[in-house]
Amino acid sequence: MIAYTAKRVVTCDPENSTQDNPLGVIENGAVVLDGSTITWVGSAEQALTFFPDVSFHSYPSNVLTPGLVDAHTHAAWTGSRDHEYALRMAGADYETIAKAGGGIVSSMRAVRAASLADLTAELSARVERMALLGVTTVEVKSGYGLNLENETKQLLAVKAASEQTTFHPHLVPTYLGLHALPPEAAGDRDGYTRQVTTEFLPSIAKAGLAQYVDAYVDRNAFTADQARRFFEKALDKGLSIRVHAGQFADVGGAELAADLSAVSADHLENVGPNGIDRMATAGVRAVLLPTASFTLGQTPPPVAAFRKAGVHMIVASDSNPGTAPTESLPLAMALAVRLYSLTVPEVILGATREAAASLGLARTAGVLKEGYRADFVVWDLPHENAIIQPWGTVKTLTTVIAGRHDGRSQPLRT
Amino acid sequence: MIAYTAKRVVTCDPENSTQDNPLGVIENGAVVLDGSTITWVGSAEQALTFFPDVSFHSYPSNVLTPGLVDAHTHAAWTGSRDHEYALRMAGADYETIAKAGGGIVSSMRAVRAASLADLTAELSARVERMALLGVTTVEVKSGYGLNLENETKQLLAVKAASEQTTFHPHLVPTYLGLHALPPEAAGDRDGYTRQVTTEFLPSIAKAGLAQYVDAYVDRNAFTADQARRFFEKALDKGLSIRVHAGQFADVGGAELAADLSAVSADHLENVGPNGIDRMATAGVRAVLLPTASFTLGQTPPPVAAFRKAGVHMIVASDSNPGTAPTESLPLAMALAVRLYSLTVPEVILGATREAAASLGLARTAGVLKEGYRADFVVWDLPHENAIIQPWGTVKTLTTVIAGRHDGRSQPLRT
Repeated sequence: MIAYTAKRVVTCDPENSTQDNPLGVIENGAVVLDGSTITWVGSAEQALTFFPDVSFHSYPSNVLTPGLVDAHTHAAWTGSRDHEYALRMAGADYETIAKAGGGIVSSMRAVRAASLADLTAELSARVERMALLGVTTVEVKSGYGLNLENETKQLLAVKAASEQTTFHPHLVPTYLGLHALPPEAAGDRDGYTRQVTTEFLPSIAKAGLAQYVDAYVDRNAFTADQARRFFEKALDKGLSIRVHAGQFADVGGAELAADLSAVSADHLENVGPNGIDRMATAGVRAVLLPTASFTLGQTPPPVAAFRKAGVHMIVASDSNPGTAPTESLPLAMALAVRLYSLTVPEVILGATREAAASLGLARTAGVLKEGYRADFVVWDLPHENAIIQPWGTVKTLTTVIAGRHDGRSQPLRT
Repeated sequence: MIAYTAKRVVTCDPENSTQDNPLGVIENGAVVLDGSTITWVGSAEQALTFFPDVSFHSYPSNVLTPGLVDAHTHAAWTGSRDHEYALRMAGADYETIAKAGGGIVSSMRAVRAASLADLTAELSARVERMALLGVTTVEVKSGYGLNLENETKQLLAVKAASEQTTFHPHLVPTYLGLHALPPEAAGDRDGYTRQVTTEFLPSIAKAGLAQYVDAYVDRNAFTADQARRFFEKALDKGLSIRVHAGQFADVGGAELAADLSAVSADHLENVGPNGIDRMATAGVRAVLLPTASFTLGQTPPPVAAFRKAGVHMIVASDSNPGTAPTESLPLAMALAVRLYSLTVPEVILGATREAAASLGLARTAGVLKEGYRADFVVWDLPHENAIIQPWGTVKTLTTVIAGRHDGRSQPLRT
């Protein structure tokens, strides 16, 4: 057994929370683990009494939180879209870039050209860097292969990266079946949707390569009807649903998410009162992606309306080579506070407990509590308020994933 | 001798620049160094022929740039102002926070309470992290001591940090004599200005602890007249001038900078046409600090007017615990492109050549050229456009400072 003590242990446990302490913070707290599991959470003083024979890693000036959970990434990419980014900064819009052959299809070309080994190596390095930033679980979508061979290759890269013995986050694979139309589909969205639904999806489901499916429901992307066909087949196969909804226009993605009990609707810069109400009633979480809307110069999603309706909010990085060339969930959290006016507790819960719940990990991750996986972070910061400042770099002292630390921490008292 | 080759060597050398190649990029380029100095810059192919006996560090897929120069930081701080940051995000403004006893005076209390050794250790760790982000020169201001003993302590920390044998950037010390009024001045700005000018400044100048002086000229800070008295004495002592001007209101800081041939006027969210013209005529550079204006939710400075008038622009981090709790010049560069509409070449020159020139290093740093100091960065990126994307983390492969690399690079061919 090992114990970590810290000035502030942010448990995110509803049972420790009060109105004045929404994050369930224990001052001078301790987390005790046995192997990969948390066995006890409480005060440091009690821990010293209850566990006299345990090694203590002691951080008397620091804040300790659950490991961050990044619930929306396209991290299995390769190739740079920096030219497109520079064009966008100079005023070109998303759809202009996509129509000019940039956008998702340019990442498709890079992914199709890459070997599984190279894709795995690049993803592994990326998620290892994320771990140093404090991220212990990462959802990773396919969606740059756009045919069966290459969507499968992306998901095999996620599987291979998750089986590495290096220090890395847990990875959760999502088959993003409807992301963009590949050139060989020749503009036939209905035909492509049919092929994805009847051919690609069954193969990927059978191979057990995905836990979730996702579709990009938007103007110039897929309609809610097209996505519904794909999603209904996915439900048949036992997969759960995440939806890209309302990034550029409200075409009914939020309502579709509610109809099908999706775990989340993501982006949501453009969603109307009906979509919000339906999400609230159906318990669909809103995944907010402020790095993408920063890059695109968009107005924020209707955060106040989500809050009022009781829609639970998640903050994620959207890590992708086009609209969110980032590796940092903490940067997204800083942007969410500044640009979206989320409160500090909302952002921290949105990157831990709420994000974990959306990934089926409500009893596993995102909370510091007996029986949960020992995923947590000690920050080179004294208070959780400091986590959401725009540091722009690694501000952790050590990350612990399933009880294993990244080599930066040493027991101070045995 | 050692050589570094890269896919793109961004020299920032005006002699290599054309209208189509404003950054003087050499494709498949090489930088050859002898000890701490660059001895040759050109094509990799020629380098292999000319220097057959040299060790080559080869980066065939990467961009190599001059080391970044951060020309405006308050990095010699200690203590967190995260509570104040959270208040600001919830709507409180700078002046309200300052009047409530937060702001600069709260950092003063922390700095006064710290030992020289602790302050040095914290600064050293901070600038070492900056080096991994690609920063090879950092200007560091005092301004949190607010009396002779503690301003001196801050500048001694800068000196001590610059003499460490660890891998760290070059540090350039600035005595920020007029930053805020300490409580013991009891509201007497004229009296404090007199004390700073006649007592603190001569002592600091005599000890050789600063290369520059700075003053905060703004509403609720110091007047242009007060700053002028301080600056004139500094010029007498052989020190050059930087000015905090127009962050909240235009009270004549830009004109003062021009009158006294300051090397820079910094912030400049609020500057009128006269100030801009005067800056252009006098050759005063504009130091833009987008992280601070992001944090404060401000409108951008008049970038188009600077460009039109021919005012050279610099981008800096403003690293400080209140309005820019950041360690990343690359993040400031990403914000400058997105929020201020600077072009990629403007941002890269503004964080290299222009920044170096403002620090008296026009013939030393910020450019890759024979005779210059061997300060440069190899990025884990294929093109300079990618440097200004919002990565939010370390995206360098290796940083080289005065010819010494950070241990991450190995010669690939001897």
